[in-house]
Amino acid sequence: MTEHAQMGLWAFFRPTTIHTAGWRFPGANPRANFDLAELTRAAATLENACFDALFMADHLSLLNMPMDGLKRSHTATSFEPLTLLSALSSLTRHIGLVATGSTTYEEPFHVARRFASLDHLSNGRAGWNIVTTANPDAARNFGVKDLLGHDERYERAREFVRVVTGLWDSWQDDAFPCDPAEGVFFDPHKMNVLDHKGRYFEVKGPLNIARPPQGWPVLVQAGASPAGMRLAAETADVVFTAQTTLEGAQSFYRKIKNQAMAAGRPADSCKVMLGTLVVVGRTAGEAREKRLLMDRLVHMDSALASLSVASGHDISAFYPDGPLPDLPTTNQGVSSQRRVLDIARREGLTTIREIARRVGGYFGHEVVGTPVQVADQFQQWFEAKACDGFVVMFPYLPQGLDDFVNEVVPILQERGIFRKFYEGSTLREHLGLSRPANQFS
Amino acid sequence: MTEHAQMGLWAFFRPTTIHTAGWRFPGANPRANFDLAELTRAAATLENACFDALFMADHLSLLNMPMDGLKRSHTATSFEPLTLLSALSSLTRHIGLVATGSTTYEEPFHVARRFASLDHLSNGRAGWNIVTTANPDAARNFGVKDLLGHDERYERAREFVRVVTGLWDSWQDDAFPCDPAEGVFFDPHKMNVLDHKGRYFEVKGPLNIARPPQGWPVLVQAGASPAGMRLAAETADVVFTAQTTLEGAQSFYRKIKNQAMAAGRPADSCKVMLGTLVVVGRTAGEAREKRLLMDRLVHMDSALASLSVASGHDISAFYPDGPLPDLPTTNQGVSSQRRVLDIARREGLTTIREIARRVGGYFGHEVVGTPVQVADQFQQWFEAKACDGFVVMFPYLPQGLDDFVNEVVPILQERGIFRKFYEGSTLREHLGLSRPANQFS
Repeated sequence: MTEHAQMGLWAFFRPTTIHTAGWRFPGANPRANFDLAELTRAAATLENACFDALFMADHLSLLNMPMDGLKRSHTATSFEPLTLLSALSSLTRHIGLVATGSTTYEEPFHVARRFASLDHLSNGRAGWNIVTTANPDAARNFGVKDLLGHDERYERAREFVRVVTGLWDSWQDDAFPCDPAEGVFFDPHKMNVLDHKGRYFEVKGPLNIARPPQGWPVLVQAGASPAGMRLAAETADVVFTAQTTLEGAQSFYRKIKNQAMAAGRPADSCKVMLGTLVVVGRTAGEAREKRLLMDRLVHMDSALASLSVASGHDISAFYPDGPLPDLPTTNQGVSSQRRVLDIARREGLTTIREIARRVGGYFGHEVVGTPVQVADQFQQWFEAKACDGFVVMFPYLPQGLDDFVNEVVPILQERGIFRKFYEGSTLREHLGLSRPANQFS
Repeated sequence: MTEHAQMGLWAFFRPTTIHTAGWRFPGANPRANFDLAELTRAAATLENACFDALFMADHLSLLNMPMDGLKRSHTATSFEPLTLLSALSSLTRHIGLVATGSTTYEEPFHVARRFASLDHLSNGRAGWNIVTTANPDAARNFGVKDLLGHDERYERAREFVRVVTGLWDSWQDDAFPCDPAEGVFFDPHKMNVLDHKGRYFEVKGPLNIARPPQGWPVLVQAGASPAGMRLAAETADVVFTAQTTLEGAQSFYRKIKNQAMAAGRPADSCKVMLGTLVVVGRTAGEAREKRLLMDRLVHMDSALASLSVASGHDISAFYPDGPLPDLPTTNQGVSSQRRVLDIARREGLTTIREIARRVGGYFGHEVVGTPVQVADQFQQWFEAKACDGFVVMFPYLPQGLDDFVNEVVPILQERGIFRKFYEGSTLREHLGLSRPANQFS
């Protein structure tokens, strides 16, 4: 290869630290999640480092955990993703803006319209993280008593995505001559009425906003269950995964790419991005010390509550120094429960207390080390086809983000595996994704 | 009086011209509605002139009219209000940002959260224009077949507003100590769980965002029917009205104030703002010529379609040079139909063609004249208690807005009836409205 393949780098932005106790770290801004000046500064720093995108996860309720743990969670207040990213669209010029939108508690017309609007406001930098929202506390904020089953949530999501993309194609790109002399604002022959009638939705259309600059904002999906992976492989431009081992990530990567090809898509039209907490130190020892301190800052109330969330069961009823009993599969997050059991087995954690400590902070993929060690592992996983890039989770703001941007990014750039400047202007261009043709053409 | 009472001035911002043919005016930017640079410039100009707020009306579908008229409408594409105002929140510092949100096709949790988020992003400048959305084409974009009746839409709106304001009060103002040493992010005793169970909604809460800086974003309402006026008098901080005669406006003003007082509110806690198209000329004749040219630019296809919308009936079936037959009252916009009949009677318009020409451009309140004449009429109506201020509709952008700001505003300022600088920082402060106490305190 004369030219290196380029990895993607996204920033996980809500919450600003995925680690439960990151907000308590010495020197951290404990209100970073909800401090517009801090977020604005972070966005500018990330754009200066040529990151592809900011990624806003979301919840439609407080976390579903007992108050003793909940009151320690820094996610209890935060900006709503679409309004925050719209505000940041005015303050940035290049970086992609990816917001989460629920297919279970939203209407496709609103979702299509708002993401189209963000795409226009940002000149083609919008992305939609498609989630099905499993948390039963969210249902109680929308008057929903009968939760959809796991597979049915994904059936609804599949139809929801069809409606949204259909609405984005409501207008040909040149539908609006806006000709004052003739008095013709749009060409009726370039308007497409979706007229969708499906199992979950009936939506007439057209959308009352021109086709987005990207054709479709970038579609992001994170399901790890078979139904989630199928939806991702068939529809997503970007798949966000939380694999924790190289072999697991490689296997997931191959599966998604194969499923995408089986669905008639080129393998590289579906990017796999690996969520990764990165803790950087001047020495390997300093990095490890930082990481250990983060876990030590997790209160045991919070640890037990997090384990209850992750396993889908109230763990407080069990004896904490005994083993974790067999738990039945729940509707809420099949893949999350499996990850808890995997990590306990892999690391030889036997008691509830041990598992809670490990799970209570953060137990997804992480890289801890010197800048060179972090860059090495990013390069290794990228070149081993474990992922097409990383959704970087910072331990805290501002320094935890600055460490990565100032110390690690230049190494990746020096090695030729991450861009030094933006070549394109839209998020699709950053990702090397083509602009979808209008399905009505 | 040693100090003059101050009128309010808001800018009607979606569409950028209320007049059907305003986009065709010589020198107008025909794409102003959908040109972020133009809207940003306009927002800066209005803020420089100390306007209270930008007001974004909204539609959840294209206008409900035949294609021959529809293709001439500049409202077919525009930004979605909340995303646009969030983007503009970063580019402005003082001016209020009022977006429309539907109580019929939205969920209260989403509405409460997004307006709270905009209020935080803008440091207390958000307002919610509460609409019930009568247009049957909107229903078809949300899979709704049985339209709610007029009064039921308002019953639902009343409950919707109760839920939204209840969710805004989810947290005491000092609920978030964010104390890293103790590991306590929020104080559970300062969290309020709404647990609403009503006729239309069941919403648990709390909202996952801190109480808005204004306590509640400013509540705006525009219904002119008895049910609409009752809702406005009971709940709205600001009532937007489209009265066209001084006597009608005075009568509406008295009714709203009396109803507000009957509901236990001080009369000045409910501001009445009059939507007003302003056309300014160097001479009275030039202003009249401009106004006539605007109507001449309305295509007859568009005129007849607008009359159909305004009257709630397909007018194309009738003989255009004959009289307008008696029309039964429809679910869609009782007050709009009454206004058509009133203006036809008042101005002696007898044929459908004449009425369509008059209605097809814009037929609400308007002031046409020299800067002094416009200022005189604003002062007269304001001092005659026809309104507390004006939602100014500009004939087109940019010049139609600049004319008002450069020529009329300085006169109002000179007369001491409009501010020369912002004294407060929030929209409530601009309007002289108090910050609501938390209902759970």
